[in-house]
Amino acid sequence: MRIGELSRRTGVSVPTIKYYVREGLLPAGELTSPNQASYGETHERRLRLVRALLDVGGLSVAGIREILEAIEDRDRPVHKMLGTAADRVVPRYSEEAGEGVAEARATVAELVDRRGWHTYDDSPAAEALAVALAALTEIGHADFAEVLDAYAGAAEQVAGADLQYVARNVEREELVESVVVGTVLGDAVFAALRRLAHVDASRKVFGMGE
Amino acid sequence: MRIGELSRRTGVSVPTIKYYVREGLLPAGELTSPNQASYGETHERRLRLVRALLDVGGLSVAGIREILEAIEDRDRPVHKMLGTAADRVVPRYSEEAGEGVAEARATVAELVDRRGWHTYDDSPAAEALAVALAALTEIGHADFAEVLDAYAGAAEQVAGADLQYVARNVEREELVESVVVGTVLGDAVFAALRRLAHVDASRKVFGMGE
Repeated sequence: MRIGELSRRTGVSVPTIKYYVREGLLPAGELTSPNQASYGETHERRLRLVRALLDVGGLSVAGIREILEAIEDRDRPVHKMLGTAADRVVPRYSEEAGEGVAEARATVAELVDRRGWHTYDDSPAAEALAVALAALTEIGHADFAEVLDAYAGAAEQVAGADLQYVARNVEREELVESVVVGTVLGDAVFAALRRLAHVDASRKVFGMGE
Repeated sequence: MRIGELSRRTGVSVPTIKYYVREGLLPAGELTSPNQASYGETHERRLRLVRALLDVGGLSVAGIREILEAIEDRDRPVHKMLGTAADRVVPRYSEEAGEGVAEARATVAELVDRRGWHTYDDSPAAEALAVALAALTEIGHADFAEVLDAYAGAAEQVAGADLQYVARNVEREELVESVVVGTVLGDAVFAALRRLAHVDASRKVFGMGE
């Protein structure tokens, strides 16, 4: 199809599509004449993925480019590749670690140990968790660590469901795409569900006087 | 304490503190002379809250101002106030709803019904969930809806733990602050835990060939 048709199908404007091609988020169309390119279903699917990561996932153009590079890097075994793709969608904290983070890292290490989770050194997820826990402690919510195990149990359930979902997609490229999609959009899904469940739980606890 | 001391204690520069005061994120210090203001523990705590919401929660200055206004609005019953505070930390989607969203809203309504959750009309969380599900469907992951119940069960567990945590804080102001903190930073905590659990689950499923 021509770029105009791709634009109509996806609701993304032609200049934006061209911008994504220039930024490396979308492969260029196949040239059918010196100034006309043809786009296929792969382009359409990729374009929808990019939009979902931008709009719902809240990722940056640079972040998406890194993820797409991980999808296309065929030199790594599947397990490592999935880890790389997942690591790239973890928010990075640029700040130099405050004093509280060192303590929080120990809390995280204990938790990982207690749950019997396999992890690896310099896991960005472990670091992100330590930063969040340190921030909670700084604002007087150190006790939040007491609910960590409830969170961890729920995270295991969600991760199990994610993997079951991902394991259906046998193609390597689809597999990574599923992990990325599941990680980024799964966060959005879970956050929304958690808020819905809050409303229900809060009504039960505080709603008596309504 | 003087502004310099507040800056030293929190690691936030003096110009940034002044900016937060101008933007309404931090109450002005008490004037002790025409050009000197004194700051107390309330300021320090509020400043740490603002930084946590900015750095870890990824909220905007405008978003934080809205949340702080909700904390200070004493005209609402606790249950409603908590709902308002929580709604304000739900990401808003500006796009006009695509065709997919109407269908996804029905999926969300069925889920809420199936779980027996109390909710309310125009819940931003329900809308956020519908938008995320529609995005998943658009990129070929409509099947993701099949794992929704596993997510919902985990969300109930986390919400239960959150409410238990929140219910300890009996002061009205602290209560809302806990909800905001728990919602925003809790998302960051859960997302990090989910990634850690992914690594473990992925190793079990895909790690055989390492």
